[in-house]
Amino acid sequence: MKFETPIAVKEIAAFIGAELAGDETLMATGINEIHKVETGDISFVDFEKYYNACLTSPATIIIINKKVDVPAGKALLVTDDPFSAYVSLVKKHRPFVPLTSPLSDTAVIGEGTVVSPGVVIGHHVTIGKNCIIHPNVTIYDHTTIGDNVIIHAGTVIGADAFYFKKRASREVMYDKLLSCGRVIIEHDVEIGAGCTIDKGVSGDTIIGAGTKFDNMVHIGHGAVIGKNCLFAAQVGVGGKAIIEDNVILWGQVGVNKDLTIGKGAVVLGQSGIGKSIDGGKTYFGSPVEDAREKKKELAWIKRIPEIWSKLNS
Amino acid sequence: MKFETPIAVKEIAAFIGAELAGDETLMATGINEIHKVETGDISFVDFEKYYNACLTSPATIIIINKKVDVPAGKALLVTDDPFSAYVSLVKKHRPFVPLTSPLSDTAVIGEGTVVSPGVVIGHHVTIGKNCIIHPNVTIYDHTTIGDNVIIHAGTVIGADAFYFKKRASREVMYDKLLSCGRVIIEHDVEIGAGCTIDKGVSGDTIIGAGTKFDNMVHIGHGAVIGKNCLFAAQVGVGGKAIIEDNVILWGQVGVNKDLTIGKGAVVLGQSGIGKSIDGGKTYFGSPVEDAREKKKELAWIKRIPEIWSKLNS
Amino acid sequence: MKFETPIAVKEIAAFIGAELAGDETLMATGINEIHKVETGDISFVDFEKYYNACLTSPATIIIINKKVDVPAGKALLVTDDPFSAYVSLVKKHRPFVPLTSPLSDTAVIGEGTVVSPGVVIGHHVTIGKNCIIHPNVTIYDHTTIGDNVIIHAGTVIGADAFYFKKRASREVMYDKLLSCGRVIIEHDVEIGAGCTIDKGVSGDTIIGAGTKFDNMVHIGHGAVIGKNCLFAAQVGVGGKAIIEDNVILWGQVGVNKDLTIGKGAVVLGQSGIGKSIDGGKTYFGSPVEDAREKKKELAWIKRIPEIWSKLNS
Repeated sequence: MKFETPIAVKEIAAFIGAELAGDETLMATGINEIHKVETGDISFVDFEKYYNACLTSPATIIIINKKVDVPAGKALLVTDDPFSAYVSLVKKHRPFVPLTSPLSDTAVIGEGTVVSPGVVIGHHVTIGKNCIIHPNVTIYDHTTIGDNVIIHAGTVIGADAFYFKKRASREVMYDKLLSCGRVIIEHDVEIGAGCTIDKGVSGDTIIGAGTKFDNMVHIGHGAVIGKNCLFAAQVGVGGKAIIEDNVILWGQVGVNKDLTIGKGAVVLGQSGIGKSIDGGKTYFGSPVEDAREKKKELAWIKRIPEIWSKLNS
Repeated sequence: MKFETPIAVKEIAAFIGAELAGDETLMATGINEIHKVETGDISFVDFEKYYNACLTSPATIIIINKKVDVPAGKALLVTDDPFSAYVSLVKKHRPFVPLTSPLSDTAVIGEGTVVSPGVVIGHHVTIGKNCIIHPNVTIYDHTTIGDNVIIHAGTVIGADAFYFKKRASREVMYDKLLSCGRVIIEHDVEIGAGCTIDKGVSGDTIIGAGTKFDNMVHIGHGAVIGKNCLFAAQVGVGGKAIIEDNVILWGQVGVNKDLTIGKGAVVLGQSGIGKSIDGGKTYFGSPVEDAREKKKELAWIKRIPEIWSKLNS
Repeated sequence: MKFETPIAVKEIAAFIGAELAGDETLMATGINEIHKVETGDISFVDFEKYYNACLTSPATIIIINKKVDVPAGKALLVTDDPFSAYVSLVKKHRPFVPLTSPLSDTAVIGEGTVVSPGVVIGHHVTIGKNCIIHPNVTIYDHTTIGDNVIIHAGTVIGADAFYFKKRASREVMYDKLLSCGRVIIEHDVEIGAGCTIDKGVSGDTIIGAGTKFDNMVHIGHGAVIGKNCLFAAQVGVGGKAIIEDNVILWGQVGVNKDLTIGKGAVVLGQSGIGKSIDGGKTYFGSPVEDAREKKKELAWIKRIPEIWSKLNS
């Protein structure tokens, strides 16, 4: 997320009650998770093992829970609880503003687009031309939708990332990371009924142009889906997964978070993808394998009794 | 789909810009996919390998992309792109008419039926007597629902078929086949919360009398579900599957498209049904097998280490 | 379910047309399934093999289909069809009252709670303080929600139990058991988008404090979920399952009804849990096993061809 206008790092330090080290004249352009952060942005780190990754990332301003050497041209904001400091900044700059009507007056709806009864459209949503938004769809704040997009009934676009910090000693153990990312749906996408596509934590969940989802497809926070993909019903995709162009996922396939499915891969029904897989091949199984290998394996399993009897003959 | 009144084949030819061959005096009674087509109807074919099936089907008028011999009593409509011609006919005769209120004034609601707040009911929907439609349900155009039906909140009846033609050379690769079928829900059916039941491409998706679905059940386009079936939560059924009477599917079962599950079959949780299975038996696994065979197989797998050690002793 | 005030057993007998045996002066305090029944309550039994369990349960008044010896201090209500008698009592004392507006005037909403557009809230619902109920959520009658709860769009809380009695000889084979239980969501719970949480048949479905669900999670009737659990997207939990505190279920996990998952168990994606499992361990597979054992098993399967070739060498 980018701030509307850059904010002085001193002001940020005062707001979150952090000690400021390094270049005190810097201006913060936005706030982002480490994998999305850009020069000028604030990021945060609270585990020593990730210090180096964060300090050497494009982040210009780093909220950190220990005073360390400041990299050249950067600033540190030292505070006991960087996670809470980050959340308080998100809360201030991307506050939750309740809707007082089903269609926010900050939403922009393109020419020729049909918005059906029961649809709720949040603040700062943009929808392109010639779309059909079927009944009882919910579109959360800051979603961007292209032209010729069809969204079927009951679908939810832009709900919060499922992302919590574990606080083992607290009674309420999971501390919510407020999401400030968005969902971006490109041109010519069709989303089935009863789907859920979550916003990114700080970056964008993207559904590439021409991609088609059947019903009850779930897409986790910050996942990036390529162009001209087909996902059958009840597919689930974890957070920050990258699915390249022309990928076909059959029904009930599950995709873990933080992995990549290569261009043109085809994954047969009910498969479970735990690690990255190459494009251009067909896969099956949970855990997933090359479909032909998996079929051979299934045939071998059927031969165990034969092996046993040969061994005993 | 049937036309409201028969249409002269000449008029059809002019509308889609096709060359007319054969009996020019024919009247078209409707338009249907090949597996649903009846005498008098129009169908289309655009792959040579399906020509024969279409030409010998009950279809009286065939949209085709090559001039071939006209079967007796039929007419051909020859055009480069039969798919687009078919779609343009569906678009003309079953146009999408946006809803201007949550309850279309062409909908017919039976006596004693409760329609809850947030429900959206489309054009030409018929609902029988003594039904309960819980909140935020969406019922698309042309759906027919019997008596004593209960539909739980958030369910979507009649969304479009997930059916596209691949146009490999186009930037937007998947070309949508407009659906003109319906969903028919017979008497005494109960549908859980958050379910999705798609309409048929040209025919009807049918949920047989007395059948009960738990929550988040997905039924694909044109599937025909028998009477007195029980589907547990998160079951998914592919397009045009035929599930006979008294079938029980446990939670998260996946059923492929274009297959048949025989009467009284019981399928245990998370099973995946890729091919037709006989009735009267219990099944388990993905891919599915007779449940007892599958259990034996699982037991054999556990004995591989024993086999290995015997082999090496 | 408890009655608002106790009801004379004579009055109950007259209402359901049952023969009264035993203590005719008893007052019934409520009506419950056998596993939830308390002293003073009515329960029912219609299979001889369950007679003893019901007669020796805390139930004070038992609807039964055969005249048997009356246990001391109890009463029997003898009728041919105890199931229908039970249902008629539920129908009378917990009648379905259609909503005439999206927010029942018997609902109580706490201070600081946001109710978004499209939300439907039933009769006698209680929602605590500082909650966010996102758009198009449906909350059925009698649901109780604590403080600081977030419910994402399209979720359905409190739909009916999926519970039917099979009447093999009837045309409409499955006879619905009317649910009179509730859903109770404790403080600091977050429920994702498109989830469904059913009410209990006669008791309560409980989501423990601090528990977080991702999208499209299904919870069956009367399940009891502990505190600080994390359920990823598309998890399904069967009726009356007990899931203890701190359990983590990854995406698409399926949990059978009537079992227990011990405290702190972690279940990897797409696993299927058919029987109770101990806490404190990590599990994988369908059927589920200890994750390390399952991984060894998968490795052994890959060695079958090696075994075969060794056997033939």
